[in-house]
Amino acid sequence: MRHIISIREFEKEEIDALLDSAGTIDAGRYDRTALADRILGVLFFEPSTRTRMSFEAAMARLGGRSIDMGGVEASSVSKGETLADTIRVVSGYADAIVLRHPREGAARLAAEFSSVPVLNAGDGAGQHPSQTLIDLYTIRQAMPLDGIDVGLLGDLRYGRTAHSLAYALAEYNATIHTLAPGSLEMPQNVIEGLRDAGVEVVVHTDITEFAHTLDVMYVTRIQRERFPDTASYYAVASSYRVTPELLEGVRERMIVLHPLPRVDEIDSRVDTLPHARYFEQARNGIPIRMALLMEVMG
Amino acid sequence: MRHIISIREFEKEEIDALLDSAGTIDAGRYDRTALADRILGVLFFEPSTRTRMSFEAAMARLGGRSIDMGGVEASSVSKGETLADTIRVVSGYADAIVLRHPREGAARLAAEFSSVPVLNAGDGAGQHPSQTLIDLYTIRQAMPLDGIDVGLLGDLRYGRTAHSLAYALAEYNATIHTLAPGSLEMPQNVIEGLRDAGVEVVVHTDITEFAHTLDVMYVTRIQRERFPDTASYYAVASSYRVTPELLEGVRERMIVLHPLPRVDEIDSRVDTLPHARYFEQARNGIPIRMALLMEVMG
Amino acid sequence: MRHIISIREFEKEEIDALLDSAGTIDAGRYDRTALADRILGVLFFEPSTRTRMSFEAAMARLGGRSIDMGGVEASSVSKGETLADTIRVVSGYADAIVLRHPREGAARLAAEFSSVPVLNAGDGAGQHPSQTLIDLYTIRQAMPLDGIDVGLLGDLRYGRTAHSLAYALAEYNATIHTLAPGSLEMPQNVIEGLRDAGVEVVVHTDITEFAHTLDVMYVTRIQRERFPDTASYYAVASSYRVTPELLEGVRERMIVLHPLPRVDEIDSRVDTLPHARYFEQARNGIPIRMALLMEVMG
Repeated sequence: MRHIISIREFEKEEIDALLDSAGTIDAGRYDRTALADRILGVLFFEPSTRTRMSFEAAMARLGGRSIDMGGVEASSVSKGETLADTIRVVSGYADAIVLRHPREGAARLAAEFSSVPVLNAGDGAGQHPSQTLIDLYTIRQAMPLDGIDVGLLGDLRYGRTAHSLAYALAEYNATIHTLAPGSLEMPQNVIEGLRDAGVEVVVHTDITEFAHTLDVMYVTRIQRERFPDTASYYAVASSYRVTPELLEGVRERMIVLHPLPRVDEIDSRVDTLPHARYFEQARNGIPIRMALLMEVMG
Repeated sequence: MRHIISIREFEKEEIDALLDSAGTIDAGRYDRTALADRILGVLFFEPSTRTRMSFEAAMARLGGRSIDMGGVEASSVSKGETLADTIRVVSGYADAIVLRHPREGAARLAAEFSSVPVLNAGDGAGQHPSQTLIDLYTIRQAMPLDGIDVGLLGDLRYGRTAHSLAYALAEYNATIHTLAPGSLEMPQNVIEGLRDAGVEVVVHTDITEFAHTLDVMYVTRIQRERFPDTASYYAVASSYRVTPELLEGVRERMIVLHPLPRVDEIDSRVDTLPHARYFEQARNGIPIRMALLMEVMG
Repeated sequence: MRHIISIREFEKEEIDALLDSAGTIDAGRYDRTALADRILGVLFFEPSTRTRMSFEAAMARLGGRSIDMGGVEASSVSKGETLADTIRVVSGYADAIVLRHPREGAARLAAEFSSVPVLNAGDGAGQHPSQTLIDLYTIRQAMPLDGIDVGLLGDLRYGRTAHSLAYALAEYNATIHTLAPGSLEMPQNVIEGLRDAGVEVVVHTDITEFAHTLDVMYVTRIQRERFPDTASYYAVASSYRVTPELLEGVRERMIVLHPLPRVDEIDSRVDTLPHARYFEQARNGIPIRMALLMEVMG
């Protein structure tokens, strides 16, 4: 039985194989009844429209069904049930469980108590492996993954998708450039972890200095609730905003990614530029999650 | 690609063809696997049990699947995502989108950003085309649509279903009779629009004067929140209440419709009279929505 | 048309036949497309993750679809619609309705207004027949149902699952032992009803006196909200806690059941003992509910 908990448990060869599978699926070559007798238990302990809907759509594309716990307020959790008990019960109903939880480590705990495969759809500041695979897949659609320059922008302190992507890129000999507001810088232990893994990490303070050197500009949402007041949020957010003007002079092949939802981080005028790939990236959630569901239940 | 945004975009011939399709479906003549490989994205930005459940049931009857955004509070909307972004993302997951939104014009905006057909399931004071088709279908089950006398009762100011039905009936040479409390009268521009479309509109102040002249009595819910206090709501509501006594002496073929939910507008003793067709009308949501889903995805 | 409202409407032979059907299903002998053209309307007027998810999973295992009303706050109920109207509408969309409602008697009322079978998934202090069938099935997996000693522990005042199980066991010549905190004792009319049905009921005040005489220890959750303050809740709850120490010296075949969710009633160290069958019991919700869905729609 295979759980999908962290991207760091994947060998490079496994990642490449999964991206290849997703590509085959994306080309329409898959069995529409492959999971016809399977049920996916959907446990989202915090909301995530996009991730939940794309897992359910991926399941449906393969002929499978999803059963959804619904919101936490309407669940047994509100009656004081432990995560371990919920997992034990739902793993008696379903053939795999996709779990989103606000607490780091929740997915690994769930895997211990589950009698069916657990797919981590994000656990707090922890891991979100399907998102990382989506990011890699979207990059690979535009360019080879090896030896690229990737800029990570925005909230690099809490932004688990940026951390996971950086670790995954370590396998591909990437150079990582970071740019974050003072209080939201990438934690020192993450930077050191990346360097230990052989990644060159360059910490920047001005986007205009290095935008033109990038192959990928990975933008993350800066959350208002991280700031003491709205004014300081806007001051920071506006200085990290990606605009058409900023993108003048960047490499022709450079792509802009964002795990979405975006708020003000990317000017909507960027949407129509050839660099913009964030909606394509969202769409890629389907083939990637289909490949993962096949991996654990196929 | 066909969007279903407003009933006013339909030619009379198209409406008749859709009603015919629904009739064929209603008779059990349809392919239970017609949409077996299709996914409907269900985006309800305000609750509507009946409309949502009947779209999902219609999809299921045709072998298709639905993926539901869930409530707004649990969605990316609460993180500040624009409708345009949500639509762009979900249209990457689904083969069509059904949208309910509190803001008038939302469906048309969604259609601009969607890469798949959008079905408007009600946008604020705007349109709700599938409801209008259900209303027409239910009338046609009882009598020919041409040249009938239709009474619209209740909240004619905000009642979009009454407006849409009236416009649709313009194609069928109907006479419209209105009766509404003082503050909830049909807006003058709607009345003029109807008259421009060739409809005779008669504004009444006493139901007993014209009930016996009607072929259809279309009752809408008067919402408590439209009134300053409960007492004034009850005063108005009770004077618009449809009772068995009121229905004495009406035409034998006269039918009572209501888009539901009803509260106090129709006495429950009316439910068993042959005139009562509002539950039949609700049930007709299935064949009509099946016909619409086939129209955009079949 | 068969409604499933109360376990008390079942003859012993019918119960045995249903348990047999569930056993056949459990062994994998069932048609995965038996309900492929059927839709289950899911109306939960109060949350119950476990019951709802297992009904939806059971429906999916048989190839059927579920359409879910969602939470009450998002439904027409919040607009003032009566249960009768909601049922009449949804029975026009679905081939059966599963109903959970906080008000005792709601399921029977629903059955009166429904044009399709209604399955009661718990109505207030009333009935919850599928849970009782699950309980019986789980006991029968461990031992013959006839003539057993069953201890009911915890909240026996509001605990409908304990009442229903006790009534069902009357058919099997059981002896019922009760143990409950002062204010949560089994109502006298229930005790008398059981005795009238031929059941021997023994009221206990100390678990250590009779634990070793039991074949089944049925534990129910004591809800904090039944107590004036947290301290008195903990005082009571701790004295009813099932621990490995308490289980020393019990019969080898004795099994511990709990309808779940549990909070503090059963020590997690009990989970790994052979007596613990509450997760198995939860899992048995699937074959039992599949058998019930086949009964009403097959």
